[in-house]
Amino acid sequence: MRFFSDNAASVHPAVLEAVVAANASDIAYDGDAISARLDAAFSDVFETQVSALWIATGTAANCLALATLCPPFRGTLCANDAHINQDEAGAPEFYSGGGKLITVDAPGSKLTPALVEARLGMIANDVHRTQAAAISITNATEYGLSYAASEVGSLGELAKSRNLRFHMDGARFANAVVHTSASPADLTWRAGVDALSFGFVKNGGLSSEALILFDRDLAEEVRVRRKRAGHLNSKGRFLAAQLLALLKDDLWLTNGRAANDGAARLARAAANRLLFPVQANELFLRMTVSEATELRAQGFQFYDWAEGEVRFVVSWDQDAREIDALDAALAAL
Amino acid sequence: MRFFSDNAASVHPAVLEAVVAANASDIAYDGDAISARLDAAFSDVFETQVSALWIATGTAANCLALATLCPPFRGTLCANDAHINQDEAGAPEFYSGGGKLITVDAPGSKLTPALVEARLGMIANDVHRTQAAAISITNATEYGLSYAASEVGSLGELAKSRNLRFHMDGARFANAVVHTSASPADLTWRAGVDALSFGFVKNGGLSSEALILFDRDLAEEVRVRRKRAGHLNSKGRFLAAQLLALLKDDLWLTNGRAANDGAARLARAAANRLLFPVQANELFLRMTVSEATELRAQGFQFYDWAEGEVRFVVSWDQDAREIDALDAALAAL
Amino acid sequence: MRFFSDNAASVHPAVLEAVVAANASDIAYDGDAISARLDAAFSDVFETQVSALWIATGTAANCLALATLCPPFRGTLCANDAHINQDEAGAPEFYSGGGKLITVDAPGSKLTPALVEARLGMIANDVHRTQAAAISITNATEYGLSYAASEVGSLGELAKSRNLRFHMDGARFANAVVHTSASPADLTWRAGVDALSFGFVKNGGLSSEALILFDRDLAEEVRVRRKRAGHLNSKGRFLAAQLLALLKDDLWLTNGRAANDGAARLARAAANRLLFPVQANELFLRMTVSEATELRAQGFQFYDWAEGEVRFVVSWDQDAREIDALDAALAAL
Amino acid sequence: MRFFSDNAASVHPAVLEAVVAANASDIAYDGDAISARLDAAFSDVFETQVSALWIATGTAANCLALATLCPPFRGTLCANDAHINQDEAGAPEFYSGGGKLITVDAPGSKLTPALVEARLGMIANDVHRTQAAAISITNATEYGLSYAASEVGSLGELAKSRNLRFHMDGARFANAVVHTSASPADLTWRAGVDALSFGFVKNGGLSSEALILFDRDLAEEVRVRRKRAGHLNSKGRFLAAQLLALLKDDLWLTNGRAANDGAARLARAAANRLLFPVQANELFLRMTVSEATELRAQGFQFYDWAEGEVRFVVSWDQDAREIDALDAALAAL
Repeated sequence: MRFFSDNAASVHPAVLEAVVAANASDIAYDGDAISARLDAAFSDVFETQVSALWIATGTAANCLALATLCPPFRGTLCANDAHINQDEAGAPEFYSGGGKLITVDAPGSKLTPALVEARLGMIANDVHRTQAAAISITNATEYGLSYAASEVGSLGELAKSRNLRFHMDGARFANAVVHTSASPADLTWRAGVDALSFGFVKNGGLSSEALILFDRDLAEEVRVRRKRAGHLNSKGRFLAAQLLALLKDDLWLTNGRAANDGAARLARAAANRLLFPVQANELFLRMTVSEATELRAQGFQFYDWAEGEVRFVVSWDQDAREIDALDAALAAL
Repeated sequence: MRFFSDNAASVHPAVLEAVVAANASDIAYDGDAISARLDAAFSDVFETQVSALWIATGTAANCLALATLCPPFRGTLCANDAHINQDEAGAPEFYSGGGKLITVDAPGSKLTPALVEARLGMIANDVHRTQAAAISITNATEYGLSYAASEVGSLGELAKSRNLRFHMDGARFANAVVHTSASPADLTWRAGVDALSFGFVKNGGLSSEALILFDRDLAEEVRVRRKRAGHLNSKGRFLAAQLLALLKDDLWLTNGRAANDGAARLARAAANRLLFPVQANELFLRMTVSEATELRAQGFQFYDWAEGEVRFVVSWDQDAREIDALDAALAAL
Repeated sequence: MRFFSDNAASVHPAVLEAVVAANASDIAYDGDAISARLDAAFSDVFETQVSALWIATGTAANCLALATLCPPFRGTLCANDAHINQDEAGAPEFYSGGGKLITVDAPGSKLTPALVEARLGMIANDVHRTQAAAISITNATEYGLSYAASEVGSLGELAKSRNLRFHMDGARFANAVVHTSASPADLTWRAGVDALSFGFVKNGGLSSEALILFDRDLAEEVRVRRKRAGHLNSKGRFLAAQLLALLKDDLWLTNGRAANDGAARLARAAANRLLFPVQANELFLRMTVSEATELRAQGFQFYDWAEGEVRFVVSWDQDAREIDALDAALAAL
Repeated sequence: MRFFSDNAASVHPAVLEAVVAANASDIAYDGDAISARLDAAFSDVFETQVSALWIATGTAANCLALATLCPPFRGTLCANDAHINQDEAGAPEFYSGGGKLITVDAPGSKLTPALVEARLGMIANDVHRTQAAAISITNATEYGLSYAASEVGSLGELAKSRNLRFHMDGARFANAVVHTSASPADLTWRAGVDALSFGFVKNGGLSSEALILFDRDLAEEVRVRRKRAGHLNSKGRFLAAQLLALLKDDLWLTNGRAANDGAARLARAAANRLLFPVQANELFLRMTVSEATELRAQGFQFYDWAEGEVRFVVSWDQDAREIDALDAALAAL
């Protein structure tokens, strides 16, 4: 029973159907009729005109955004545990030409204005220190915490006052939207976000994420950088089709809700073990080695996060019986 | 009738079936059971142990190889008209950290030992000039010429004697194999090639090319670079499945042959217009503006290559009636 | 007798005196009193407010300017034989993060609007081709040709109309100013130049060139890039002092004139051998191997440029007897 | 009275004399007779054959070494407060093409095997995490602590066992040698160091540091990278001459000792304020704002390091009366 990662989940049947249906030949790259629908479709979701690009991976979406928002000789503020800092093999530094990540120790990997101000205060304003040009937050965070719209907004105000661009890594954006009940607009551009990596692959997609540019002036540069990074697929219609399938009838929200609901149920069963509140589809639990061994013996797969800590991730397609079984197993530990 | 580019062709039904069939969840990234089969499958094709990686685009495959074969402070020899020099938006320079492409004016974009030697002879051996560390050829070339195994071999010997690594951009490798009737092994590692970008997307694939490393010691570095470039898809099984589907029963050769046969037939109809012999699936023709306009009026789509020159590309899935029609139209011009 | 290169010439005594005189301790980096005088001193020379930075080498000055004028995903137009393309070991690509040099075959390494327009015309306006963002010319050129102010101006107008930034590599700017009798202002910002690498080391300096920014908005970024490239010397006063010494009483022009005059005299002696008119301090001559051998036997040192071609460079400090001797020897060949 | 930084100190008269004496013209770049003496001179100092290059700044020396020791897709372990991480404006990331600095919280900015092992233990061995390829230490550290030869040696053993290259930033190497009384050899290559940035500018030099390569196989690559970074001065003899002047009769040790002695004397006067033991030429002291104000009113210049903390640096040329005065003033606080 896989609670290891939502990265390995299945693809939603509607996505597969859309891929198959996209097969009629069309213009190459992103010149096709399906790709042409993305801007409008995402503009509907966000209640404002956006530029929307398909990109195969979240790492690439994040790094294309960051390289555009921050010049090589500046830095991007992020939590120390941010995916961009820990799990992307130095991709941000590669894409930005050596731009620095300016890391902040942040509980639950969640930035606050106070933490960001304190970190900025440590940077003397001279040519020896790398000055910050951008902030990047992950919503939901790497520890499964969701930013409320007001929390994003307070960071957005800080960014604006400090002349910093603002990026959101939304690998689990659906989960954050579902948890907060905030509108996509309130969680992003209305709160000052310039660019959003909008995750789909963990949420029923196959091989396409979306990069949403609220500042549409960025689009020309991002399109060139996408090509230059080898991310302009020849048959882009197959990526675009996945995104449209997941937007249709709010399937992305349905999938996100399914995952969140499963996690919420498990959170109740493991309430006394929680390292962080469960505000998306991930649980971080205190657990001894022997307990973990016992659960694995029952067929549960999960991640050893740190000494005495484990991570469970509920996927959009998680079988209810698996949730039941884990629920019971956690309660019985 | 699309003779514009094979980039926009349809995906072979067997590939779509394989994608759909790959949907059972599995380990993320390239840890899945289907990805695990790639090394063996391509080792069969090449009659030697190779490392084979799925990569979403040819640009990324080329540039991951080149960045690994050539350090940032050296250069890669290639034809001036090479795709890596003209059509990848500076991706080789990006991936390599500023490595230089050392270009050679080569008729038909086809390198020869004499051309390469002459170019090398222009580079004084000092720290002021960028010294060459690698050669990259495209097979079939950007003008639809195929290298014979012996031609690759003579370049491979030169590379070895000059201590240069040797890369082949095989965006249309299938077409070259079909045209030359050489074995994949003879066209590559037996001729000294270290790494091959093996194209599938133009030949019936959906979103996966293969990077074949004949020098398997390169694999560890390439895998890290792939992640760092944002090209380690979360659900890699869907890319791997495409490649296996096209290898099965030599479907890649069947598709390549279909495209080559169509081009050969058109070459006969346009024999007096050919700028280059037709050795793959592309035709470069002399054509006046009025002739081009006439053909377009009949519904043919193709590329204006240069003044008085046009390009037609036959795709693997080209309808026989379209070939018939173009054949007649060219003859009637 | 050294006619090999002006790079190896001696340092003018006034420069050495200024270096010795700068030894009183002061603020580190460029915070000292001598560095603080540069902007004003160069603003006098150029009859407009400029930002002026000391930089140890011409390569660094060129590349800091280019990296600031052209983003990593764009290109800089230059002559194929430009120093930045041939003799800087890929430094422009390194500094710019992989920006491409878009080379133009230009007789005498001298760009013209027609050549530049033709080259631009070859670049399709799409994301696959590297679009140009800047032009760089060398004045005097790598073949010792000087641009007239009107020639720079016509390129400047083209640059403006095409939205390109404009850089001048003035490694031998003094020689060009002397030859053309144009004012420094007319040769640069009045002709549309945004940034000038103003050479001093070949012209009597020790270890400092100047980067002149006519667009002063560039200064903040250039200062950060200078530090980041390891070119912010701790004791910058010693570099600044060199520049001021060479500006004082137009010593830079006196030195440039001495070198040009020597070259002009030799040009008359070798009039029938000249590959290019002599418009600075360099002579490019047709010469057989046996003639070159004969001259070397007489003690003359010079550079074998290409088959049947040699280069002589007259330095600012060239002994008149050496000129006499070479003059006679050339006449006697 | 300047206790602000040794970066702003004067140049030793012997260095200026050597610069003046180097003025006879010679071969350009590093082809001159003085540069040719560096390998031998430094090989004497280190009791083994080394390759020694002049480089204008410590930042460039550090970053050329690091870029050569660590590929772009790996990382270099260093103290969080290391100069390369805090004060070089991202130069290491620039030179290495985006290589990551893997920082360690280290008291006094001094690494130990235990700290390094703990940090390495946090890096999962997969393609998502940046793996370490090198260690860099600063000796004396950014807080004026000197590594004993045995301490360097224990890190060198760890580096070897973990297959990491080992770099030492010796911006104040002279001070460390003087303090420890260890031989230069024992502090470096005998302890496993591959490359040393050997500082001279803070210690009486003008504009030249030395990069010492104990692994001489690195020299070819470093020489190319030096050119490519714009650090191959045309008139290199003037940089080489500075280094030879400071090596002659162990002038570098004399200067280092003068600075250390001054600091040691002040350390006694401020014993109850010391944040770290004084093992070089720097003092870090607890000090209230009013105390600092009082000292400044008496004419002392120094650096506000952090809240309640100040830094004093004694230079090689510090006037004895200034030491006397500060000694008295500190005692009187």
